[in-house]
Amino acid sequence: MSTTLLSALRETLGERGMITDPAEKAPYCVDWRKKYVGDTLAVCLPSSALEVAALVRQCAEFNTAIVPQGGNTGMSGAATPDSSGKQIVVSMKRLNRVRAVDTANYSITVEAGVILQTLQDEAAKHDRLFPLAIGSQGSCMIGGNLASNAGGTAVLRYGNARELCLGIEAVLPNGEIVNALQGLRKNNVGYSLRDLLIGSEGTLGIITAATMKLFPRPKAQVTAWIALESMDDAIALFQVAFAKLGAMLTAFELIHPLGLEMAERSDAVKSFPLPRDSANWFVLMEASDGESEAHATAAIEVMLGEEIEAGRILDVAVAGTMAQSQSMWAIREAISVAQSMVEGPHIKHDISVPISRFAEFHRVTFAALSERYSGIRVNCFGHIGDGNLHYNVFAPLASDQASFGNVESEAINRIVHDRVVEFGGSISAEHGIGQLRRDELAHYGDPASMQAMRAIKQALDPKGLFNPGKVI
Amino acid sequence: MSTTLLSALRETLGERGMITDPAEKAPYCVDWRKKYVGDTLAVCLPSSALEVAALVRQCAEFNTAIVPQGGNTGMSGAATPDSSGKQIVVSMKRLNRVRAVDTANYSITVEAGVILQTLQDEAAKHDRLFPLAIGSQGSCMIGGNLASNAGGTAVLRYGNARELCLGIEAVLPNGEIVNALQGLRKNNVGYSLRDLLIGSEGTLGIITAATMKLFPRPKAQVTAWIALESMDDAIALFQVAFAKLGAMLTAFELIHPLGLEMAERSDAVKSFPLPRDSANWFVLMEASDGESEAHATAAIEVMLGEEIEAGRILDVAVAGTMAQSQSMWAIREAISVAQSMVEGPHIKHDISVPISRFAEFHRVTFAALSERYSGIRVNCFGHIGDGNLHYNVFAPLASDQASFGNVESEAINRIVHDRVVEFGGSISAEHGIGQLRRDELAHYGDPASMQAMRAIKQALDPKGLFNPGKVI
Repeated sequence: MSTTLLSALRETLGERGMITDPAEKAPYCVDWRKKYVGDTLAVCLPSSALEVAALVRQCAEFNTAIVPQGGNTGMSGAATPDSSGKQIVVSMKRLNRVRAVDTANYSITVEAGVILQTLQDEAAKHDRLFPLAIGSQGSCMIGGNLASNAGGTAVLRYGNARELCLGIEAVLPNGEIVNALQGLRKNNVGYSLRDLLIGSEGTLGIITAATMKLFPRPKAQVTAWIALESMDDAIALFQVAFAKLGAMLTAFELIHPLGLEMAERSDAVKSFPLPRDSANWFVLMEASDGESEAHATAAIEVMLGEEIEAGRILDVAVAGTMAQSQSMWAIREAISVAQSMVEGPHIKHDISVPISRFAEFHRVTFAALSERYSGIRVNCFGHIGDGNLHYNVFAPLASDQASFGNVESEAINRIVHDRVVEFGGSISAEHGIGQLRRDELAHYGDPASMQAMRAIKQALDPKGLFNPGKVI
Repeated sequence: MSTTLLSALRETLGERGMITDPAEKAPYCVDWRKKYVGDTLAVCLPSSALEVAALVRQCAEFNTAIVPQGGNTGMSGAATPDSSGKQIVVSMKRLNRVRAVDTANYSITVEAGVILQTLQDEAAKHDRLFPLAIGSQGSCMIGGNLASNAGGTAVLRYGNARELCLGIEAVLPNGEIVNALQGLRKNNVGYSLRDLLIGSEGTLGIITAATMKLFPRPKAQVTAWIALESMDDAIALFQVAFAKLGAMLTAFELIHPLGLEMAERSDAVKSFPLPRDSANWFVLMEASDGESEAHATAAIEVMLGEEIEAGRILDVAVAGTMAQSQSMWAIREAISVAQSMVEGPHIKHDISVPISRFAEFHRVTFAALSERYSGIRVNCFGHIGDGNLHYNVFAPLASDQASFGNVESEAINRIVHDRVVEFGGSISAEHGIGQLRRDELAHYGDPASMQAMRAIKQALDPKGLFNPGKVI
């Protein structure tokens, strides 16, 4: 049977559109964190929405499940097939055209396989800004960004992938193509399938193209590295910065010295704007301005000057050059990579909590963790301006690093996520559910919402062939 | 049977929660435009989500349809019951508490029946801005704003109701309560039921409460009234203003002299910032600033000065006082009211087209209308910055005004909407589908999307009891 399906698919996609060689298939069967390893009958590489629709119908005929995949940089295993070897991976790689740029409408239409960095560059070529920015932007694809509703460092000012999307083209499990690529800011024509598919992680449809918002490119960007006594002080600084800078405030990232220590140990970072052990917390702040460098610098310096004077911040380094600014951002990005590549196994959490309650949440949670595991380490960093931190738990230095992550992960998830829910937060802020948090969602999800999600899944994908085992 | 249902509902809601007297029911059975007149078995006024859930279950038991209603200011008849007298109107009036304001988290949680103006005022009391602004804000309710994904004059900077909403509480057709009132900027936990219910016009669920975003209150707002030669010039000015002012640009409304003439005839407006016949088009522009009045005024005056010098705008009046600014906005708002209250029947369209193509769209459409109806008048005005204009067609002065609107409406809809679709636009930008555009949506809607919408409706509301006859 699988041979018949493979020949049908080969007929649809051609030789270039199919990978069946085990060695060539392998990279499509493991996630970026190498936490999930699966197998696949074949990797399909369609080059048009019509080809996606055709292959979806063919797979349906053979009751064969489909796992859509973008740049394969997801953090939750949503794009990795199971180990049966019976699922088909559909890679968006060849669906990689920029279809249209409408500068006056501040919009761009791209296919799902366009790499995020390419989209940013294309916008810049037209003197426009595409603001979505995440660590994996050199290889992640806009289709995956939308399927997982990616966040990143620019959400504070510009919103997440959902808020940047005007229209989509997508193939549904019945093989029909949703044609809704409008570049419109206002379009109230019934249920928003766009928003239903965004964040559905390939379980309801395969996004094949999207029309995304563009923005005026800021004339100037000023970056500052700020040393703080406590998380409370960092959150208080955010309040001041947001109130005074408003839409000029384009990033506000919290960094813990443990992350800096890891970045240094990974050799990715040689030096820091301020000594890495000189404070309990650091903030990387960016202000963007449509007017001028001078105006931006003045605004940020006046604000920070007042805060220093009032004793609410310990020290600050403002990047005087583009290179200095880039090296600040490089430190921020090095933390994620260092954790996964150099440090031992650890238990990741991607949580959000209303910013008004984050410091208290951290106190309570860190106390609960420390009580159970003396000397436990938490590398807590990220988008505090959005109330979203990566709350990654590392074994005490004295413990066996390798076994800790496996043995204790469930207990630690419970400690962290129970408190997240208690504080009105989310157990998945921007990384999505995938395989990693499916059981957690089943445990914590709002019952009425879960029931409605299952009804929607059943209605659109009655055979359950779109990315089974993910999300719900 | 209906007697049994009524007593069951009365038991649930109490005397205060039920209206059955014909005279008292009447205002709930007609829409704001008085285009649709229906009847209802009873108007229910629940005072909690639990009461809504209970009445939904009771109605389901008796196979009785429910029509949710907010401030009853909708433009598409979505909140008006049919004429059978068998449907139940569920008014949100008594669900009108402000549940929580979290100033540090820039969020507010309100029940569905809170009037938009009340929400704005509550935010202002806490030195915050709730930006949603529409003509009916004195009586429309946030639940209705969300159910119809309301737009208005601040979408350009702050987004529509959807983009302002962080979380919802809602009752589904099965009587279950969705508890998703999180005040989180990032929350990727499966399908976004929030976004599915927003804009679904009460056909999938009844929104009972919502957590909405707040923003820093601008320190200064500067308003300008600008005279222009052509729609092309207005759109070119938008390009300059958006590029130079960026997030400072908080409104950009296009106004046609015909609308001004109507506003004057309605006696709502006595004078204009510039003579109303001195140009072919006017723009009402607003810039907001977090810094100072001086900074805002300088930015806007420099920009407009350059445009005058380059001959791209004819004349400009900048409001020097708050009163002048308010009177400019009053003129803008008077246009909608004057049309409905004073002028004869006319054929309304609420369309969006990519701004890059709007001038061409208007040329083509106006030519087609004029060819068929010599002397036809179009009052075309609204949110050109979002690519959204109200494109309202009035009979030639010589014709019988009363009959024209009825006899020709279908032919005129076809001329306008065919071209909207041809130009990649939407036949419903911000007013929604309701009863008014249900057939138009069936005619123009993307087939795969319509099929998916019906599947979702069937999955969540298998008995079809939530607002039947609306949207799909």
